[in-house]
Amino acid sequence: MQINTELLTELYTIVGEKYVYTDLETRHNYGHDETEDYNFPPNILVKPATVEEIAAIMKIANKNKIPVTPIGARTGLSGGALSLYGGIGLSMERFNKIINIDEKNLQVVTEPGVITQVLKDNVAEKGLFYPVDPSSMGSCFIGGNIAENSGGARAVKYGVTKDYVLNLEVVLPTGEIIWTGANTLKNSTGYNLTQLMVGSEGTLGIITKIVLKLLPLSNHNILMLVPFYKSDEACEAVSAIFRAGIIPSALEFIERDAIDWTMKYVPEVNVIIKDEIQAHLLIEVDGNYPDILFQEAEKIMSVVEQFEIDEVLFADTEEQKNALWKLRRAVGEAVKSNSIYKEEDTVVPRYELPNLLKGVKEIGRKYGFTTICYGHAGDGNLHINIVKGNMTDTNWITEVPKGITEIFKLTVALKGTLSGEHGIGYVQKNYMPIAFNQIELNLMKGIKQLFDPNLILNPGKILPDNL
Amino acid sequence: MQINTELLTELYTIVGEKYVYTDLETRHNYGHDETEDYNFPPNILVKPATVEEIAAIMKIANKNKIPVTPIGARTGLSGGALSLYGGIGLSMERFNKIINIDEKNLQVVTEPGVITQVLKDNVAEKGLFYPVDPSSMGSCFIGGNIAENSGGARAVKYGVTKDYVLNLEVVLPTGEIIWTGANTLKNSTGYNLTQLMVGSEGTLGIITKIVLKLLPLSNHNILMLVPFYKSDEACEAVSAIFRAGIIPSALEFIERDAIDWTMKYVPEVNVIIKDEIQAHLLIEVDGNYPDILFQEAEKIMSVVEQFEIDEVLFADTEEQKNALWKLRRAVGEAVKSNSIYKEEDTVVPRYELPNLLKGVKEIGRKYGFTTICYGHAGDGNLHINIVKGNMTDTNWITEVPKGITEIFKLTVALKGTLSGEHGIGYVQKNYMPIAFNQIELNLMKGIKQLFDPNLILNPGKILPDNL
Repeated sequence: MQINTELLTELYTIVGEKYVYTDLETRHNYGHDETEDYNFPPNILVKPATVEEIAAIMKIANKNKIPVTPIGARTGLSGGALSLYGGIGLSMERFNKIINIDEKNLQVVTEPGVITQVLKDNVAEKGLFYPVDPSSMGSCFIGGNIAENSGGARAVKYGVTKDYVLNLEVVLPTGEIIWTGANTLKNSTGYNLTQLMVGSEGTLGIITKIVLKLLPLSNHNILMLVPFYKSDEACEAVSAIFRAGIIPSALEFIERDAIDWTMKYVPEVNVIIKDEIQAHLLIEVDGNYPDILFQEAEKIMSVVEQFEIDEVLFADTEEQKNALWKLRRAVGEAVKSNSIYKEEDTVVPRYELPNLLKGVKEIGRKYGFTTICYGHAGDGNLHINIVKGNMTDTNWITEVPKGITEIFKLTVALKGTLSGEHGIGYVQKNYMPIAFNQIELNLMKGIKQLFDPNLILNPGKILPDNL
Repeated sequence: MQINTELLTELYTIVGEKYVYTDLETRHNYGHDETEDYNFPPNILVKPATVEEIAAIMKIANKNKIPVTPIGARTGLSGGALSLYGGIGLSMERFNKIINIDEKNLQVVTEPGVITQVLKDNVAEKGLFYPVDPSSMGSCFIGGNIAENSGGARAVKYGVTKDYVLNLEVVLPTGEIIWTGANTLKNSTGYNLTQLMVGSEGTLGIITKIVLKLLPLSNHNILMLVPFYKSDEACEAVSAIFRAGIIPSALEFIERDAIDWTMKYVPEVNVIIKDEIQAHLLIEVDGNYPDILFQEAEKIMSVVEQFEIDEVLFADTEEQKNALWKLRRAVGEAVKSNSIYKEEDTVVPRYELPNLLKGVKEIGRKYGFTTICYGHAGDGNLHINIVKGNMTDTNWITEVPKGITEIFKLTVALKGTLSGEHGIGYVQKNYMPIAFNQIELNLMKGIKQLFDPNLILNPGKILPDNL
């Protein structure tokens, strides 16, 4: 790798000197995301603003075999934006324009550095709905959502990021510019390069323009918080709600500890919970017809009442709804503010959720760690926070990976997989052989080599080290 | 290629002698699908019944570089099942078992040779819904639907095949067996091999087991047929309905000629149409709440009444509904029974539909051919049937390809693409450079080579000859 004056001069020429940074503070600032306490700074941080600038940077990097790591809003939870091998960090923050909200076709064309909430708000002003809502939507970039195939609370009804991506402009690691598909709802024209790019965590190309499908905006919703005396019954209720023919717009599972910690972390949100309550389901239905929503809420009530529950809290006002969502969305931060932690993003068929939860607790007991669990139960997506608490450093280093291995093996045995919406990135890559055999991993490696023959783009992610 | 006694003996050993055919009649019978009048018979037709048998066949074929063409129900419209280079035809018809309808997780595990309608009926008996409904669903295989990423009338609300495929067991061209993903609704674990396989038209692997997502069954629907005095207004109404906030469960466009021809072909279906009517929209809304459907039907009425329409026909009974759907689904066959034809499967953003239709007619006039157009207007998916009628053989051969080229160029200029749901296969492959540049095509070629290094699986499909 040659990080020298010649390279800097070339980068100055391409993006302008003011958008090339080599100072320690900037490098450190762009060396992390939200994954544990890792920091892998790039040697040089650049902030390009056009697809041509990125193409020019990639041509130089590819020629000189310099690692390049695309960097979005740095809210990722699997270390996808870490510059593991230094090199050039490519901040996408100047790609911050919504190019066209196409009301006639219910589509939006956007740059990747737009904050997801900003995108949602802008299309909502036109009566349109971009449903994907990762918990970090107030700060994450839509481009990062595509890189990780992000989900969120509404995925249970509306799907995940991949379900909205129609077409992508991408700079390949070799500096060539492609479009992956067409701006159409249906497409049977060649191999699906669009879906190959979605969820590829910035390892196959740099997304520079995005065409998303939108829906008409739903106008009404009902939000309810159901306290369960038993965690496993909360999990069982999830599947029962679907079998009753209802598709809620959100169905979130929150363990007791997670709520307690979060209420300390977000003091303005306050829910009174009996000591015996072990878990909650936060359930939302949405649609255009309030009467129907009441009917559906009643049906949900009749399902959850078959389990041991305490009084259900209905959010009557927008403020109450926002407070409950704030509580849910802050769980991750709250748990993490409390201790050194590792977070896993397991996903199983939703009926297997009680088995997964039970297994996680047993594995925790076996290896001596505590877990705080919450997540998108409607999708079978359980976030497992392993908190260090009073564990010794030695046990943290030796025992926890064994426990994680067992958790992932259980997940796969239940027909699930390692990550539902956070990606594999840096921290899960060496667990990939639990989910995929050597032949499957070799296909993935072959795809990486095809797109990136010099292996310069976001190296050290997704694929295990020894592949 | 060695089609000799030794090979036959090996195939006998693998699948049993009774499932290996070399007679002319069988070969001819498996040499076609529904694409024009093409017949490319395999040298040997085999009917394996297990994944292990297919793996064994592929190992021999790969070692000896013998072409293998997977063959489903032979209902395809792009020539995907044609054994262009002879070799082994691999009929999937014995993979005809629905393995498990998982009511708890709203999933079904099935073999690929199950007829789509049979699958739909079986899950419906359990109160579950597999929404994808290609016009050929009474005879096509679910495996073929996945190979082509088939759509259908309900795609406008429910999506296409790809939106329901969670996980696939696949035999690679090299004879290795893989699973592409997990049985989960969300998945951010490595590159999306599942979506790479969907729509790959049997060129990357042979699908042997399928895990599909299901929905709760909708109970009610309203179906209406709206006659328009002007075709372009019918197209405009499509986009207007969505902008009114309604997502119909079907929104089909049928040109006047298509209806007339179909009523001759299916005499039991009879609709009285004024001479001045140029086109129809067949519109369905579905859901669980009849009152809401009436509201939505009224909203649709208020939209279509802004255009010049004749009296709207509401289907009052199941018989009327079935008759209207039969009319719609028979259009393709009816048009084709009438003349030598070519069918294109263009797709554009739905608001561009009037521009596409107008352009198609102009191009037809320029090159002297007639087109009958119909299709899934809600998705912007227009089936263009070019009928030979009185055109001379010379003009048919020389002028029509020029016209098709122009139609595809127009489609791409409108941000659309070549095929919405039929695939590229044999008949469209040399038009691929209209939709993709050389770099994009090279990536697709690289993917093909990665999965199929000896290029033995379904050769001569998707990628243009001169790539």
